[in-house]
Amino acid sequence: MELVSVIGGSDVHRSSKEYRFAYELGKVLAKNGYGVVCGGRTGIMEAVCKGAKEEGGLTVGIMPTITGEEANPYVDIRVNTGLGHMRNPIVVATGKIVVAVAGNYGTLSEISYALIYGKTVLGYRTHKIDSVIEINRPEDVLEYLK
Amino acid sequence: MELVSVIGGSDVHRSSKEYRFAYELGKVLAKNGYGVVCGGRTGIMEAVCKGAKEEGGLTVGIMPTITGEEANPYVDIRVNTGLGHMRNPIVVATGKIVVAVAGNYGTLSEISYALIYGKTVLGYRTHKIDSVIEINRPEDVLEYLK
Amino acid sequence: MELVSVIGGSDVHRSSKEYRFAYELGKVLAKNGYGVVCGGRTGIMEAVCKGAKEEGGLTVGIMPTITGEEANPYVDIRVNTGLGHMRNPIVVATGKIVVAVAGNYGTLSEISYALIYGKTVLGYRTHKIDSVIEINRPEDVLEYLK
Amino acid sequence: MELVSVIGGSDVHRSSKEYRFAYELGKVLAKNGYGVVCGGRTGIMEAVCKGAKEEGGLTVGIMPTITGEEANPYVDIRVNTGLGHMRNPIVVATGKIVVAVAGNYGTLSEISYALIYGKTVLGYRTHKIDSVIEINRPEDVLEYLK
Repeated sequence: MELVSVIGGSDVHRSSKEYRFAYELGKVLAKNGYGVVCGGRTGIMEAVCKGAKEEGGLTVGIMPTITGEEANPYVDIRVNTGLGHMRNPIVVATGKIVVAVAGNYGTLSEISYALIYGKTVLGYRTHKIDSVIEINRPEDVLEYLK
Repeated sequence: MELVSVIGGSDVHRSSKEYRFAYELGKVLAKNGYGVVCGGRTGIMEAVCKGAKEEGGLTVGIMPTITGEEANPYVDIRVNTGLGHMRNPIVVATGKIVVAVAGNYGTLSEISYALIYGKTVLGYRTHKIDSVIEINRPEDVLEYLK
Repeated sequence: MELVSVIGGSDVHRSSKEYRFAYELGKVLAKNGYGVVCGGRTGIMEAVCKGAKEEGGLTVGIMPTITGEEANPYVDIRVNTGLGHMRNPIVVATGKIVVAVAGNYGTLSEISYALIYGKTVLGYRTHKIDSVIEINRPEDVLEYLK
Repeated sequence: MELVSVIGGSDVHRSSKEYRFAYELGKVLAKNGYGVVCGGRTGIMEAVCKGAKEEGGLTVGIMPTITGEEANPYVDIRVNTGLGHMRNPIVVATGKIVVAVAGNYGTLSEISYALIYGKTVLGYRTHKIDSVIEINRPEDVLEYLK
């Protein structure tokens, strides 16, 4: 199964534009047969998993601890790494492409690794980095998955 | 979804008892609603994924490279780590219990980490380690999953 | 012993301003009793190790492979990780502060992790990131080590 | 500088034969110009670092956290990994040879990785593994360093 990596801030409010975007993105990906892989926690990670599950999609969380008990309730498959922040490169290596939504330094590290690994990186209200392609609507991601 | 970690040698012959055991184990796990997580490559890893897929199960491979192209054809979800041998602890942390079949030093490292992490470890024709519980039939695993 | 993390591009020319800066930085650090920790390879990493050794300093290379044979000739202590690009967070976690010189996405990932870990990050002709403090001369680093 | 990896239990008593062995081993290594690399913590790790420092040797600790504040007082160079137990393979990859003293599953994981990586592994009162060469006196290690 093909997965899309979704990365972004863990402290994004549920009422924010960014949370809404990630939630809708989860729906779009699930409807089009793509699974989601993310860091498995709160904020953008929760939003995209929630959206994906509401459309019957599959969600994979690359978890920081060795128990994975910190997973949000919408994660199907918990990959327990024990790596903490060092799991970030695995999140982006596992997806066909990468979508960044908002985010802080953790997201910046993931964008960096995605670019090191030669992945296409799409961004919505995230860091301004030359190689990141800005998108405005969740559906825009489909064009890059063809 | 609950996963079971299956670990073991990558160079086991397809006609061996150990390959057969892992293949049947994959079937047993899938029939009983468990997914499989393994190192995603050849030998025991291939056998258990093949068995699981023939019964409609889900298979997760924790891959050594950042592309995952070395996955055996029965891996559904490729988690691309770029960690090489250092991915071994992730394989065992991700399963509810761990089953070791045959294997060499890589398998010994996985048994060690499983025991560090407090997992139940079952073994078939593998290293003799005090805390590893020997089993003789694939179905025996079910008793430890209750 | 206190170490300073020096990060930057591996493909910087030996005649460039950036190579020169890193080389002089190595000298400054060694003269002031600080060791150097870096990724152990070419370009900026070679330059800073060379400078440090010429002043009798100590150099630590966090190496990508498990043999460390790719180390530049000025690395005293090879820490062989087998982690490839995933060693980057270790480089920045090991230094008291971090100095970035030039660099591409690998350096960006290191800057990101340094900021995740709450380190002071100084930069010379590197990525423009809000929290990175620009410096112009190698000696400027001493002010941040007090 | 060439390093020797010393691995073993973190909960070994200071009055035990094993602690004494590791302490004397640190002295022997330092007197013969070898540095020590270990996991940087208590028990065997502390003992070997203490011995090495008393003879003016160099000690490298591969630390579990990103701050390294858990280092024993005899560690010169703290390599802060943030990897927890997953740092074990780095400890053994970094030494020319590996010496195991006592120890539990963590030590078993390190012996496993040392053998995966093709290292010579010497052991004193540790796990019985076929490829591990038993030694009885700290000086015996010198024969394997020639």
